[in-house]
Amino acid sequence: MSASRSHRESSTHSVMNAAQLDAVGDPLAVRRIPVPQPGPGEVLVKMEASPINPSDLAFMMGGYGFAQGLPVTPGNEGSGLVVATGTGFMAKRLRGKRVACFARKGLGGAWAEYMVTRASLCVPISPDTTFEQAAMSLINPLTAQAFVQIVRRERPAAFVNTAAASSLGRMLVRLSSRDDIPLINVVRDETQVALLRSMGAEYVLDSSVVDFEEQLTSLMRRLRATLIFDAVGGPLLGQLLTAAPQGTTIFSYGRLSDEQCVIEPGALILQRKQIVGFFLSDWME
Amino acid sequence: MSASRSHRESSTHSVMNAAQLDAVGDPLAVRRIPVPQPGPGEVLVKMEASPINPSDLAFMMGGYGFAQGLPVTPGNEGSGLVVATGTGFMAKRLRGKRVACFARKGLGGAWAEYMVTRASLCVPISPDTTFEQAAMSLINPLTAQAFVQIVRRERPAAFVNTAAASSLGRMLVRLSSRDDIPLINVVRDETQVALLRSMGAEYVLDSSVVDFEEQLTSLMRRLRATLIFDAVGGPLLGQLLTAAPQGTTIFSYGRLSDEQCVIEPGALILQRKQIVGFFLSDWME
Repeated sequence: MSASRSHRESSTHSVMNAAQLDAVGDPLAVRRIPVPQPGPGEVLVKMEASPINPSDLAFMMGGYGFAQGLPVTPGNEGSGLVVATGTGFMAKRLRGKRVACFARKGLGGAWAEYMVTRASLCVPISPDTTFEQAAMSLINPLTAQAFVQIVRRERPAAFVNTAAASSLGRMLVRLSSRDDIPLINVVRDETQVALLRSMGAEYVLDSSVVDFEEQLTSLMRRLRATLIFDAVGGPLLGQLLTAAPQGTTIFSYGRLSDEQCVIEPGALILQRKQIVGFFLSDWME
Repeated sequence: MSASRSHRESSTHSVMNAAQLDAVGDPLAVRRIPVPQPGPGEVLVKMEASPINPSDLAFMMGGYGFAQGLPVTPGNEGSGLVVATGTGFMAKRLRGKRVACFARKGLGGAWAEYMVTRASLCVPISPDTTFEQAAMSLINPLTAQAFVQIVRRERPAAFVNTAAASSLGRMLVRLSSRDDIPLINVVRDETQVALLRSMGAEYVLDSSVVDFEEQLTSLMRRLRATLIFDAVGGPLLGQLLTAAPQGTTIFSYGRLSDEQCVIEPGALILQRKQIVGFFLSDWME
């Protein structure tokens, strides 16, 4: 095998079905387009499964930029079989392997029959893991792990996560129960309160109750919760900023709310608070 | 002289006139109250001059908290003569000296005939400096110096200051002209544009013109201005966050605007931006 030649299974087709976005706000179209070719250090994955994550919606809204313009195929993660590779040791080692895979930043591509991505963005999966399980095994679990590492590094007396009934939020409840730093879970209705309590979560606040802000302020100050992970944005982010004790850092990692996010700069200045964007690919780099 | 005894000039009175705030939002009252006593490491300053800074208005709005409750005498800096001291080497060395002085954090006190403050918050002034000059020689100049140090540490390709025609803004224009990092000055009308241009400022944007946001975005991206000092808050802070290039840090140090500050969390997350409060006393510590 020459290092300069692309390795391709004979069964790979030259044309595929792919979801395509022509412009921000447009519905997706399914089209027949050429199967992409892996370059150096890249692999071609025959896709088997790909989830719809909140970050995919952000991608389609143009939030990541479109590194190669429009139209573009969305899809930030998925799973499949590596059927061809470009040059490079890592890429070639993945040939024929079942993998979970990330899309390249700003390029998307998982919502198609085939996706090209970098070998370094693929993780081989064990035979007893289904493609459906593997397809969601990267973005949420790695984000939850990143949060646990940030908590262990910053050592707040307590910390907060919002949209806490999401898959990510539930992972965080499980992961953080091993540490001794209390987690305050913010959810949006009483069904979600019950769900998290059934998992053993000690602190769960329902943002739909009338005295939510008082409860939030009182609990955050009592537990000295100076670290917040917020997936929601909108009015909740403003409430969190005001309620938080002095010296708090808010990591904003999502904007599930499409309502306005109003903040009070005085809280930042006089109480040494900060709002920092968290984006998984940047953090991994 | 015993180290345990307070040293007081014979001319010091026991009662003084002082401005007092009874509740947030109330007008100030001028009252006769006892002259305060310096404790260990503290001095009693017979006040000669004290400015009204934006930070005094923030203090009166309760933004610093009231460390000893209400009523309280506002006034964060000023100048005067040290007429009595508590114990401590530094305090005693200041006896009889003309000084510029900060108030203790959260205590205020400069808008009175006498103020007690820590010796470490006083700077002796030279005989050819008037009390009026000295009274404003701490908060604005030290803030401008702090900004210059932050710029030298962060080494952005360019940086932005808002409310740039303020005393602080004009100091920053002078100080930063010594460095090679371009400063983008944001002001609010054409008179201020002319003022800053007459001082030699190269980049001045007028936030009152219709295409301000386009000008701001274009200039910030062209110069790669990834560091912003914002004194305004309100809608401008939201505009700055959106206009700024990837990786920008905004230091929020004032909220001159009392309009709502709406931000887009997506800009934080996907473009690695952050908003950090800047408060001079915290920075000095």
